[in-house]
This record gives sequence, C-alpha cells and structure tokens, in this order.
Amino acid sequence: MTFTTRTPRIVAARRLQRRRDRDQTGRFLAEGPQAVREALAAGVVLELFGTGEALTRHGDLALLAPSVSEVDDEALVALTETVQPQGLVAVCEQIDVTLSAALAKGPRLVAVVAEIRDPGNAGTVLRTADAAGADAVIFAGDAVDPYNGKCVRASAGSLFHVDVVRTGLDIVDELRNFGLQTFATSGYGSEDLDSLLDEGALADPTAWIFGSEAHGLPQTLLDAADRQVRVPIYGGAESLNLAAAAAVCLYASARAHR
Amino acid sequence: MTFTTRTPRIVAARRLQRRRDRDQTGRFLAEGPQAVREALAAGVVLELFGTGEALTRHGDLALLAPSVSEVDDEALVALTETVQPQGLVAVCEQIDVTLSAALAKGPRLVAVVAEIRDPGNAGTVLRTADAAGADAVIFAGDAVDPYNGKCVRASAGSLFHVDVVRTGLDIVDELRNFGLQTFATSGYGSEDLDSLLDEGALADPTAWIFGSEAHGLPQTLLDAADRQVRVPIYGGAESLNLAAAAAVCLYASARAHR
Repeated sequence: MTFTTRTPRIVAARRLQRRRDRDQTGRFLAEGPQAVREALAAGVVLELFGTGEALTRHGDLALLAPSVSEVDDEALVALTETVQPQGLVAVCEQIDVTLSAALAKGPRLVAVVAEIRDPGNAGTVLRTADAAGADAVIFAGDAVDPYNGKCVRASAGSLFHVDVVRTGLDIVDELRNFGLQTFATSGYGSEDLDSLLDEGALADPTAWIFGSEAHGLPQTLLDAADRQVRVPIYGGAESLNLAAAAAVCLYASARAHR
Repeated sequence: MTFTTRTPRIVAARRLQRRRDRDQTGRFLAEGPQAVREALAAGVVLELFGTGEALTRHGDLALLAPSVSEVDDEALVALTETVQPQGLVAVCEQIDVTLSAALAKGPRLVAVVAEIRDPGNAGTVLRTADAAGADAVIFAGDAVDPYNGKCVRASAGSLFHVDVVRTGLDIVDELRNFGLQTFATSGYGSEDLDSLLDEGALADPTAWIFGSEAHGLPQTLLDAADRQVRVPIYGGAESLNLAAAAAVCLYASARAHR
C-alpha cells in the first residue's frame, strides 16, 4: 500500500514542519538520503517514508529503519521543504540533551548560538562546529528551533554528531563551573583573536558564544563572558558574516587544542 | 519630476538586472545605502535613484552623486531585487581590472573563485577575502558575474574594496610568474592546512583557489596548482561549506602575513 497525503501517518508527519507540533511530540523530520543515513546511524529514526524509486535506490537505508512506508510523489512533496526533494524523509526523535548532561562529559570545545533566529545561519554554525571538533552546540535564549527543517538541512548531518542543547541565556556560570572559558564574539570586542592566539589563550577548554548578524549578542551575555573577542578585519570590509566568523574562531581553537 | 517605471532611464537601468545588458553596457546596479556609500567612495556611481524619503534621509549620499533622480515606490521596487528595498539604487560603472593589472601591484593575498556559479557564495567569499586583507579576488572560468545583484549584496561593499578580475581558468602560470604560490582547496587535498601552518608555508604571497561546493575545482586547476590543500575535519562533519572553508584558509594566511 502506497501512502498518500490523506494517509493519517502522513498527515501527522507533515505537521512536524510546524514548531508547535515538533515541541509537542518531541519529533522532527530529516529529509534526503544523507540526513536519513546520519539519523539512522544515531539510532533516532522512528519511521522512514520514501518513494518506491528512492527506497529501491537506497535499499541499505530502508533495511536499517524500524518502519518503512512507500509514499506517492505528492505525499513526498508534502513532507519535504526543498525544491527538489530526494525521495526520502524520516520521522526522528529529538536528540537534544540538557546543558549539565553535555557539560558533564567534559567538552573541550563548545559553540553557543545565542538568539540566532536564522535557521540557515544556526545550521551552518552547527556544521562548522562539528567540523572543528566541537563536542556540543548550545542553542541559547530565543534561538531558532534546532529541528527547524532549514536548520537540519544546513547542518548537513552535524545535528546528529554533536550534543545539541536548548537552554536559556543564563549559561556563562554553568559553562565556567565546568571549566570552560567563555569568549563572546563581537565586532566591537576589546580583544582580537590574534592577541588571544599570541598569548596562547586558546589552549584551554573554550566556549565560543555567537550572536545574530543583525543584532549581535545581548549585553548581559557580553558582560558575563570572560572576554569579548573580535575577529580582526585586515581589509576594508565592515564585518564578516556569521558563518565565516564562527569558522575562524572555532578553527583557531581546534588548532590550539591539537 | 518623479521617475516612474515608464521613464526611459528607469527602463534602461532596470535592464541591468540581466547579465547580457550588464556585459553590453559595462554597468551594474548597487542597491541600499551601504552599497551606494561604498560605490560613491569608489567613484563609480553614474546615477543615483531614490525615493523622496530615502534621498532626504541620506542627503549626504545624494550630495555626492553626479546625478540624482527621485523615483516613485513602484520604480524603486522595479529596480531592486530585495524583499524590503532600502530606498536607494545606484547605476555604477563596472570596476574589474585585468589579471596583469591586479598582479602588477604585487598582491600578497589573492582569492580565486573558480567556476563558482552561486552568487551568494561568490559574494561571501569576496567579503571574507576583503576582511582577511586580500588585495584581489579573481572570478575564473565560468564563474558567476561579480555584478550579479545577489553577489553584489552578499559582498556587503567589498566589491568596491578589492581588485576584482574576470578571467579564464588558465591562471596558475600567471599567478606564479608574479611570485604567488597557488593553493587549490579540495576536500581530498593531499596536504592539510595544519601541516602547511606547521611548516610555515603560509608566510609567502599566496593565491587560494576555491571551487564550488557541489563540484569542487576542475581537475586542470587542481593539477596546475602548487599544492592541493584540505581544511582538516576534526569531528564527524563530512565537509565545511564554502564560506567557512574560505574563511579558515584566508585567515590562516592573514595571520601568517602579519
């Protein structure tokens, strides 16, 4: 039997495109073979939907899923948000952990996205943090839902690799209690990344705190952090975009931690 | 007199949203106060259009433009490509220079975007290269037109700060002749950025060559370059996105060049 847009399980899955329904059910959608593969590896897939063609092509994935259902093209389009959906969508269990659970593992590199509402930006920082070897990514304050479809896609699977935490803005004390120095990034930071590198300040376990491109970090977080750090601008640009700034900071730490 | 969508100069300016017309006229559009300010500072504005309200609010910019015309809201929307246009659009002269002209200045840091067709990605690399102090950005091969509206916007003014070059793919010999070592980036590069840093290889004048996220660099460029370099991945991510990888590479050079 092929599921259609009117099949109750498709109707229910489709509601997961809305934050309210994700929050209520503790579930989210991961689309495309790459994300589905990572979700299966993480053991969080509850149900896999796919077109007949995609399920045949990705038979290895279909074998690993606890429940597999064929859907027609219209149902696939309804479940996905991309212009060219790639045939597979998984309903997954949300995987975030508490701040204390993540910190109890003794992470050496943590990224905080504070009040970042753009899902593409948040997902890209998640991907970059994972690439730089970060152990946890903390969505703090009124940040985007990490299970937002665009954030999941921008993370390119990294959502499943690191500890994801959702918490309030009041995080600095707890980070510090767990031995992490806290660097809040700001275009107006009093110290630049080069001076931190020169003094060897990046070798210790570090939490980098990033704010939105439009609004920067809330003043309370800037004040609470150990240091306010800016990425040096050597040329005429006014600033870096968030993805670039996060990459420079996180990779500077990664290299210092080798 | 307020210009409308039917005013011949608006009709002509609007055509600059198409690459063919930009190529034919050697002109392009820069929209929003920030881009207009940078274009004026670079001395390339031919004509400034704005709503009455925007021309009043940005009177300093209107004073600097060689020709200023008020447009109605409909004409402004027609001239701009953003959802919330910011009231000003400038017709500018294209500013790219030849490869030899750019290299004759003895640049120490150059970014090459090779066959990168995504205007947002190319513009972001332009902005990041400028921030890292690069002297020139080379659009090589079948890359996006640097004057594409989305590329201009993503560059956040950096289009006006660095030497922009449009040329073919066959650039490595000329870069080398001007004393630049050539590092082609690839997820499969035989050397990683850390080993280059460890051996002090970044101190010399360097051209970083970046390809598209989807297709990477053409094999001819990979073969021609002095080294094929990958950004190390410390975690579970498969790769970095282009903006992040370019930021890490260009800032590694910037720091080595201090």
